[in-house]
Amino acid sequence: MSKISFDNRLMFTYESKSFPGVNKVASLVRQDLYLVTGFRAGEYTRGSKCRNLIIFGTVDRSDYLKELEDNGLIDLEEVRGKWEVYSFQVIDRPMDGVDHAVVIAGSDKRGTIYGLFHLSELLGVSPLVNWNHVLPRKKKNVSLTDKANMVSKEPSVKYRGFFINDEWPAFGNWATEHFGGINAECYERVFELLLRLKGNYLWPAMWNSNFSMDGPGLESARLADEFGVVMSTSHHEPCMRSGEEYRLLRGKDSIYGDAWDFISNREGITRFWRDGLLRNKSFENVITLGMRGERDSLILSKDATLQENIDLIRNVVKTQNDLIKETIDEDISKVPRQIVLFNEVEEFFYGDEDTPGFMNDPELENVTLMLSDNNVGYTRTLPSKEMLDHNGGFGMYYHMDMHGGPFSYKWIGSTYLPRVWEQMTAAYEFGVRQIWVTNVGDIGTQELGLSFFLDLAYDVEKWGGTDAAITEKYMSEWSERQFEGMLPKSLRSRCSKILWDYTGLLEKRRHEIMNSDVYHPLHFGEADRILEISDGILKEAEAIKKRIADENMSAFISLLYYPACGTANLMKMWILAGRNELFARQNRIEANDYPEEIDKCVKRDASLIDEYESVDGGYYKGFGRSEHVGFVNWNEEDNKYPVKHFVYGANSPRMLVSRQYDDNYMTGLEWNDHPQTWRDMLRPDVDSIAFDLISGSEKPFRYRIHTDCNWMTFSKTEGEVSKRERITLSVNKALLSDKVTGTFDIESVGIGMVHVTVEAAAADVPKGLYIESDGYICIEARHFSDIKDTPKGGFKVLAPYGRCGSAIKAFPVTTDFMKERRRPGVEYRFFASEDGEYELTFELAPSTPVTFKAEQFIGYSLNGRKTVILNTVWQPDIPFFLSRQWREEAMSNVKKVTTTVRCTKGANSLMFYGMSPGIVLERILLVKKGIELPGSYLGPGESYIRCNEEEGNE
Amino acid sequence: MSKISFDNRLMFTYESKSFPGVNKVASLVRQDLYLVTGFRAGEYTRGSKCRNLIIFGTVDRSDYLKELEDNGLIDLEEVRGKWEVYSFQVIDRPMDGVDHAVVIAGSDKRGTIYGLFHLSELLGVSPLVNWNHVLPRKKKNVSLTDKANMVSKEPSVKYRGFFINDEWPAFGNWATEHFGGINAECYERVFELLLRLKGNYLWPAMWNSNFSMDGPGLESARLADEFGVVMSTSHHEPCMRSGEEYRLLRGKDSIYGDAWDFISNREGITRFWRDGLLRNKSFENVITLGMRGERDSLILSKDATLQENIDLIRNVVKTQNDLIKETIDEDISKVPRQIVLFNEVEEFFYGDEDTPGFMNDPELENVTLMLSDNNVGYTRTLPSKEMLDHNGGFGMYYHMDMHGGPFSYKWIGSTYLPRVWEQMTAAYEFGVRQIWVTNVGDIGTQELGLSFFLDLAYDVEKWGGTDAAITEKYMSEWSERQFEGMLPKSLRSRCSKILWDYTGLLEKRRHEIMNSDVYHPLHFGEADRILEISDGILKEAEAIKKRIADENMSAFISLLYYPACGTANLMKMWILAGRNELFARQNRIEANDYPEEIDKCVKRDASLIDEYESVDGGYYKGFGRSEHVGFVNWNEEDNKYPVKHFVYGANSPRMLVSRQYDDNYMTGLEWNDHPQTWRDMLRPDVDSIAFDLISGSEKPFRYRIHTDCNWMTFSKTEGEVSKRERITLSVNKALLSDKVTGTFDIESVGIGMVHVTVEAAAADVPKGLYIESDGYICIEARHFSDIKDTPKGGFKVLAPYGRCGSAIKAFPVTTDFMKERRRPGVEYRFFASEDGEYELTFELAPSTPVTFKAEQFIGYSLNGRKTVILNTVWQPDIPFFLSRQWREEAMSNVKKVTTTVRCTKGANSLMFYGMSPGIVLERILLVKKGIELPGSYLGPGESYIRCNEEEGNE
Repeated sequence: MSKISFDNRLMFTYESKSFPGVNKVASLVRQDLYLVTGFRAGEYTRGSKCRNLIIFGTVDRSDYLKELEDNGLIDLEEVRGKWEVYSFQVIDRPMDGVDHAVVIAGSDKRGTIYGLFHLSELLGVSPLVNWNHVLPRKKKNVSLTDKANMVSKEPSVKYRGFFINDEWPAFGNWATEHFGGINAECYERVFELLLRLKGNYLWPAMWNSNFSMDGPGLESARLADEFGVVMSTSHHEPCMRSGEEYRLLRGKDSIYGDAWDFISNREGITRFWRDGLLRNKSFENVITLGMRGERDSLILSKDATLQENIDLIRNVVKTQNDLIKETIDEDISKVPRQIVLFNEVEEFFYGDEDTPGFMNDPELENVTLMLSDNNVGYTRTLPSKEMLDHNGGFGMYYHMDMHGGPFSYKWIGSTYLPRVWEQMTAAYEFGVRQIWVTNVGDIGTQELGLSFFLDLAYDVEKWGGTDAAITEKYMSEWSERQFEGMLPKSLRSRCSKILWDYTGLLEKRRHEIMNSDVYHPLHFGEADRILEISDGILKEAEAIKKRIADENMSAFISLLYYPACGTANLMKMWILAGRNELFARQNRIEANDYPEEIDKCVKRDASLIDEYESVDGGYYKGFGRSEHVGFVNWNEEDNKYPVKHFVYGANSPRMLVSRQYDDNYMTGLEWNDHPQTWRDMLRPDVDSIAFDLISGSEKPFRYRIHTDCNWMTFSKTEGEVSKRERITLSVNKALLSDKVTGTFDIESVGIGMVHVTVEAAAADVPKGLYIESDGYICIEARHFSDIKDTPKGGFKVLAPYGRCGSAIKAFPVTTDFMKERRRPGVEYRFFASEDGEYELTFELAPSTPVTFKAEQFIGYSLNGRKTVILNTVWQPDIPFFLSRQWREEAMSNVKKVTTTVRCTKGANSLMFYGMSPGIVLERILLVKKGIELPGSYLGPGESYIRCNEEEGNE
Repeated sequence: MSKISFDNRLMFTYESKSFPGVNKVASLVRQDLYLVTGFRAGEYTRGSKCRNLIIFGTVDRSDYLKELEDNGLIDLEEVRGKWEVYSFQVIDRPMDGVDHAVVIAGSDKRGTIYGLFHLSELLGVSPLVNWNHVLPRKKKNVSLTDKANMVSKEPSVKYRGFFINDEWPAFGNWATEHFGGINAECYERVFELLLRLKGNYLWPAMWNSNFSMDGPGLESARLADEFGVVMSTSHHEPCMRSGEEYRLLRGKDSIYGDAWDFISNREGITRFWRDGLLRNKSFENVITLGMRGERDSLILSKDATLQENIDLIRNVVKTQNDLIKETIDEDISKVPRQIVLFNEVEEFFYGDEDTPGFMNDPELENVTLMLSDNNVGYTRTLPSKEMLDHNGGFGMYYHMDMHGGPFSYKWIGSTYLPRVWEQMTAAYEFGVRQIWVTNVGDIGTQELGLSFFLDLAYDVEKWGGTDAAITEKYMSEWSERQFEGMLPKSLRSRCSKILWDYTGLLEKRRHEIMNSDVYHPLHFGEADRILEISDGILKEAEAIKKRIADENMSAFISLLYYPACGTANLMKMWILAGRNELFARQNRIEANDYPEEIDKCVKRDASLIDEYESVDGGYYKGFGRSEHVGFVNWNEEDNKYPVKHFVYGANSPRMLVSRQYDDNYMTGLEWNDHPQTWRDMLRPDVDSIAFDLISGSEKPFRYRIHTDCNWMTFSKTEGEVSKRERITLSVNKALLSDKVTGTFDIESVGIGMVHVTVEAAAADVPKGLYIESDGYICIEARHFSDIKDTPKGGFKVLAPYGRCGSAIKAFPVTTDFMKERRRPGVEYRFFASEDGEYELTFELAPSTPVTFKAEQFIGYSLNGRKTVILNTVWQPDIPFFLSRQWREEAMSNVKKVTTTVRCTKGANSLMFYGMSPGIVLERILLVKKGIELPGSYLGPGESYIRCNEEEGNE
């Protein structure tokens, strides 16, 4: 067994013929090892003696490797000619005077770099070591044996990277603070991050900066190439020129003319493109083709026909291709190129019934077709089987940060891993394998989502698949990697929990579009749950923070504490604001306690940002700057913080009585009271109800509770209430033989008398059926009672997933079961209280159709009747993207498809079938016609089911 | 010329054969004279010498009068046998040893009493001298000559009085505080007030007290009779027994049984009634007949048929009549009786198509039929021509205070004199002349309305008529009377103004149903106007108060300061609350200034009540106790004070730009701004617009205003705004030849740029036409351009009147012009901007149909087309009273009848015709189809008209 120790006798080989970037990375790795072992590795001189040696190089660019290969000590054929592959071998006696070595042999520049960083990771160094100052655990007697030997495989996706987008105020301020601008020095940090995360591709900041001019000059581009970072430009920046470059260079006397208009200023624009290509031709690039209006606008007027637009874009691409042939390579198939089908361009690509699109144009041969998501993380059109023949392959432009419609989210990273997993794995299955690029805004606090995105792109086999639980494994490993150096294991798993909790909150609703009206303050306890999660995060994160040493605070705050607490605090603020508003409307005197709590949240929001931006000597300064509270438009214009409400109590003592989750109340006053009947206890699993006695006045009231029913007991039956007292009514169902009706009174002494009727039942319920109560039945999709696969596919449970934690989806994801005779299905069984109409709602993930056609179908069948197929798209006659449905679903993160069905009293069977691809079913809700459920964002909890075998109700 | 001086030689005759009540009143008058002159009049002994003598007595109950008549010095035939008439004569040498005398000779007890109080009034003593401690002006050398000689006429209405209703907490506390209960001592004060106000009839408190049991015993009833006060009982208290008496006397072993049920307990109930009649038979009463369920409820169940109800009520009345014959007088026609057609009883009276009502039943012969108003001061059914034959005559039960639907108003007197004038004068014309009784709740602060009601009842010829301006005369005289003793004349007229202003506010909306949503905080400046009036009242009343001597504070505060300031302060509070809420929603930082102002109002509300209840040694203690803020039900249950709103400003400076009366705003931010076009200047009478620059942040912004238009000028063009700055844009129309469009910009420096388009026109407009602007034309009804009377009647202007100050009504009020071939009309001329449909709204006083049938018609004709007749009742198939329309109109005090008309571009002529009685037209509004006017309570102001002859636009 070969073995190498990372002791004070460790050395690195350096060769002058190596790629300079590779040598630079080797030095980064040497620094990593120092952090782990406390020893600084030396530089090896050929022929000298050495106990432990790191030999690294690129095939055909390294004498050491050649020698080792020649000597039969390593087999470079395993890597030669491959894309970004490295061989990692621990061997003894690689050469004279050297006892032990790790040999890292890359197939190419990046292969070698990934191999070097692989060494760091093996020793426990996080890829975020320099970006977030994640210090590795210091270790003594570090060694590796040949058990570590491996040859990496080619990455799943060829180009993998991110987009620094809309860089002000966050990234811009950060870069200016530390590097004096968005220049090469700044990009060196970005390149390192990208490479350590196993990315290779970048769209640079371009809102107000020019990658190839601000380095200074070409320095950033040159440095990118040195590091092996493949540069590209965003969707509307052709020919390696930033969007803002033209604004700087245009003018009356400019050689480029003074109009971003390919018709009126063709000569100037063409020249502008040609000069861009010439300037950047020596670097490794993926060149964007196409053209768009300035600042995300249309290129032709709204009145132009589709054909005119298509003709123009074809003309533009042909011109660009010709320029590339002229300036770079006559064999244009060798030049990586892309065209991005974003927003309105998509229409030109697909065309319509009368006008064939640009899709199959010869100018697009070998050009990667970049598809995109719907701005909030759901992919839009995916390649059809016919399109898969396209020889340029497909790419995906995916948002984890957005400045635009339907709403901007630029503050704290809000990526929920299962969503990325589900969507990007599916995209891969559909054939999107050439380019993956994610918009990460300013990078800061996006590290978790970005890591996963790039790891998935690097190895879809490892992190993709059909089991969403892989994301839990990922989160767990990621937490281990980041927090291993600072916390004991037990606390690290708590970190993972916090990360799940905070990203889970954002999966329900993102920061910017939270407000006091999202979650109902009372109904179904949803606000309670959000508050509980938020308070849990705040408490837990605070507790863990106490255990963090100063030197680790940078990583802890940036990767966990700030994003999690920032999110939890904001959610809490809005929940409190909603309660404050409702309670004020009800004249509860406790409403007046809320403004102070809201104040604390508003202040904490600011102080959390301050803390993040000042930790580690202000290292993250700038990254917290994005507005994020109370958006009323797609961006922060006219955004609004919570309004604080104060009430005057009534002049006389006043009692309000309300069930815990009900916003109706009784006063017990003589003339206008609305007595209630409580039916909760009819539900088999409910034998107690919490209700509140609430003061509507500064003056307290005394109360007395009385009942003649022996089956009711109360947690308290008299007392005085200044603000609110919660009482529990328990029903002893053992005393009941069947359904009973009883009453009890709550007297506010000297004021009024509330009369409540209670219905309760001890009745046995049938097994294996979800039981209707309060007029509805709610079933989580994963809780089907039967599943029917077909030879061609079947449903699988996704968990964790979505707003409510789980879902089901039909696999294979690429199969359109609409076209199949037999379709996979799942069965749900429930008990309806009566024959009659029910409103049936399928709650689905808000995915978008995978085709340009606005249709995406689901199918169901009730009680063996004919299968009903519904198009989930509201307006099939307009493109889905940018539709009202898109906006609403993007905000709420749910797609609701509602229809009416006729149920049978007693047992019912509902089949749900796989139909269009992309459908993910989360919950099913049946509501009896005429019943209006209390308004809420998340809806009611799952109904009761008495399980067979008496196992728990999962 | 005879003359008498009121000097220290004045004496009063007292005769033992006089009614004791008359002598008691003489002593009150002696006390009045003392307050004026400083001299206490002596008691004259027959035969002694006397310089100046007051001789008073009742025809046939006075030796003095007989002697004077015998001696030909007075003519008692002028009064003898008449109802409540007195002769008032200044004569010299009435008898030996007496130089000068006033002879007051009453036709009966009350005639004499009124004659005595007439003397007080002649000397400047207010009827409220003892009730409100209105001190008369002290005078030297007071005298009267025979110019004062007169013989009063019989009162217009036979029985005139009020109802102390729902006496807790106000009247009950007051009575308990001062008299230990609602007893005879207390009632003596009430009787005096009633008689001084020339009333003669009373419904005593009965919520929780028993007039004939609590005196103690019969003492109150005995005292009433002594004073000549005719006692009756309210609508559902038959046979002189209070409603609560039965509750006290019933029981298992009671001789009256234990059920208020004429069917199951006929014997007990009959005995109860008989005993009541026997008990009170010796006093002067008007006996109530009929029966109703306990506590204002139905007498039979809801399921009972109309016929069953009618049969029961007939049976009841027959029983009662038989009891009266048995106990009081076999000739029942001599016994004053009444039956009140209130609420559900009305239906039994009129019957329906299938079931003849109780109306013409022989049992009702000689019984006064009491009609009633709609609970808020609009009379309901009035006698039809056929009904006028009814030999018992008609009465009216009229509310100035209400505890019940559609809403309670029991706090400060809210009576607007023109409404009482219009409604009660009409009732009189319709034949309601036997009994007028008004519900005044606890009396306190109702003095103004009550005075007018009783004065009108006493002399409809003087205070009725067809000119509403008579109420101004009344108000002026009333103010003179109350404030003469405490203020110089110039300030007294300001008092009158304050009274108009405060009762005018209440005519728009009463206290209890005010809330922050009534008046729009900005639109049409309506909130500004309410605030201006309120602030004006508060300021003016405060200024006058400084001039009031301590001894006059009691009267000043109770009659003016407290009701006026209490009202103004409450209105102000709600206006501020509405602004606070809107401004908070808009995130104006100035919103945060409002809660403190609201606080001040809430505290002032309490302190004004405290002051009222503590002035004059706590004389009014109790009268201010009624809840009056933010009713959400018909009564105060669950009432709510304003909610106070606080905002957090935006993190960065933020500008909002808004026209003064517009709740839309611009921010000048790049992506989401909504630029506006201002068309105000198209209106011929508008050449300036005020707009606000408002801060949405704690951080101020700097602004610069720029335009290239030479015809625009701004009151300021740059500056810094911390909260709000108002700018005026003026247009120099002299520079315009026709319609122009211009723009200007408001830059919030470094933040945004607001662009405003302005349309202006210098265009000449035709004369004599109301000109459309902003899509609407609004005309006050009084501003007709032509009036067309018929021989049978015509329209007259009512002013002051209604929500907006004036109206028109067709006279004679009793004429149903629907049945006439020729109808009186008025013409309105206006200029429409285009051919097309307009929504035409007639704003009417919310009067109710004068018949039991739910129909009340208006008629109009546009441009000479066929007359269109509209029923103003929404649901003609259900009784109007208690309908949704009744409730809504009672709250808003306006009836809106809307229809669609097709206007012609240019001049249009709209005729409005007299149709059903009771119609009062206040305003006309035409709105172009498709235009939605900004929401408001009072609607837009009147449109522009260029008057012929260039006189002012009245």
